[in-house]
Amino acid sequence: MTTHPFDQALALEAESDDLYRGTTSEHYWNMISPFGGTTVATLLQAILSHPRRLGDPLAMTVNFAGPLQKGTFRIRVHPVRTGRSTQHWQMDIRQGEDAEPAITGTAVFAVRRDAWSDTESTMPDVAAPEERARYASPANVPFLQMYDVRYVDRDPLSGGRESDTQCWISDVPPRALDFPSIAAHCDTFIPRLFVRKGGPTPISTVTLTINFHADSAALRKVEGHHTFAMAKANAFNGGYYDQEGKVWSRNGILLATTHQMVWYRDQSL
Amino acid sequence: MTTHPFDQALALEAESDDLYRGTTSEHYWNMISPFGGTTVATLLQAILSHPRRLGDPLAMTVNFAGPLQKGTFRIRVHPVRTGRSTQHWQMDIRQGEDAEPAITGTAVFAVRRDAWSDTESTMPDVAAPEERARYASPANVPFLQMYDVRYVDRDPLSGGRESDTQCWISDVPPRALDFPSIAAHCDTFIPRLFVRKGGPTPISTVTLTINFHADSAALRKVEGHHTFAMAKANAFNGGYYDQEGKVWSRNGILLATTHQMVWYRDQSL
Repeated sequence: MTTHPFDQALALEAESDDLYRGTTSEHYWNMISPFGGTTVATLLQAILSHPRRLGDPLAMTVNFAGPLQKGTFRIRVHPVRTGRSTQHWQMDIRQGEDAEPAITGTAVFAVRRDAWSDTESTMPDVAAPEERARYASPANVPFLQMYDVRYVDRDPLSGGRESDTQCWISDVPPRALDFPSIAAHCDTFIPRLFVRKGGPTPISTVTLTINFHADSAALRKVEGHHTFAMAKANAFNGGYYDQEGKVWSRNGILLATTHQMVWYRDQSL
Repeated sequence: MTTHPFDQALALEAESDDLYRGTTSEHYWNMISPFGGTTVATLLQAILSHPRRLGDPLAMTVNFAGPLQKGTFRIRVHPVRTGRSTQHWQMDIRQGEDAEPAITGTAVFAVRRDAWSDTESTMPDVAAPEERARYASPANVPFLQMYDVRYVDRDPLSGGRESDTQCWISDVPPRALDFPSIAAHCDTFIPRLFVRKGGPTPISTVTLTINFHADSAALRKVEGHHTFAMAKANAFNGGYYDQEGKVWSRNGILLATTHQMVWYRDQSL
């Protein structure tokens, strides 16, 4: 049995409880740096590997402060404060002798327990992934080959006055969903500026937050290997826009909501 | 002219470029700790005071890791990495000799520039604040007296199956909007669990993110001292729920979107 390329990308060597060494993946390479989703997933993987980890991911914020280069990197994840049911983490990624981290972030892990529960954001009733064709992106970057994305509501590059899209996402080859892959799916959405402009323009994620709504027990109830995702922007303003997304399992479990701020360049009128 | 209580709460004494000393405010006290909105605003104020600060706030994440006590506290804000148009910050708040921070977080500041811009999330057409009565909260905590909140769509404690609310928010006494007050407004929304349950139940914000959509130039176009806010929850699950909000100026400028994860206790069925 061969290891899934996603698991290869997430492979870490522990140097101490808080320090992990990894290597960027050619499979999940973007234009000039790693796909941000794998960076986020690798940080999560480091915390999941940590001997002092409490519970499951509840929230994480990852800041893309500087460029990550091809090659090895060092992740530091540190449990700053551990309570009875929540644990707060600080994290960063550095390369070589660079004094400044390329990536910074924080995460919260938590233990869920019996409590009144209700999901207000339910999954819309949409066509199954088998009823839609895999989207062939005009962008030729490696990581896009690692995801099978099927839009259910529209051609994402048809332009128009709304940035909303709805799609199914699956790892290629298919892989069971877990916290790192859900985190990576949260960064696979086609950039909202491309949706508005009907084509690519220079963009770069500056900061990304994921709120997790499912714990390990809920993940065991997930069926299939697809997520269903809705995404939209609230505003494009002066070189920065936002993206909001919701991610469900195929059988309608709300897995995560996510928000990012993205740098862009667009001088069109 | 007396200083507004909000500005008193935000008053900081610089000990070095990165270190600021402040004191918790009795005006903005919550049940057992300071109102989180002032904590977030004070962190922002520290960065705004920093001699190396670049541009305006773009995004910030604040994690409530441990309890803040009444009295003095020390804020550390550090510019981790400064690019041409973005600047990444790490920050924390500590009290006394405690080795562990009570608050951690990150922020991104940015310089906006000429670019194609469009706001998709426009403000709904609603009744003016003068046409609605100030909401009298049944909760008797000091900070609620510092905000004039007027709901336009419903009684927020009427219960029901949806957590959505819409309201006008103003500082008491009225105060011009700036980045710290906008950040604080992002944490004034009545907890979504109270909305669903029709009354108070134990809750505590664990982590809060704000994405800013307006820069200093846009703030100069803001009219009035009210914000209009919409908030909702996506899911309540096993002791943690989320809250999403959007905040506009009275004349319809989208100022911020915000998301938080909240701990709660509720054993009802």
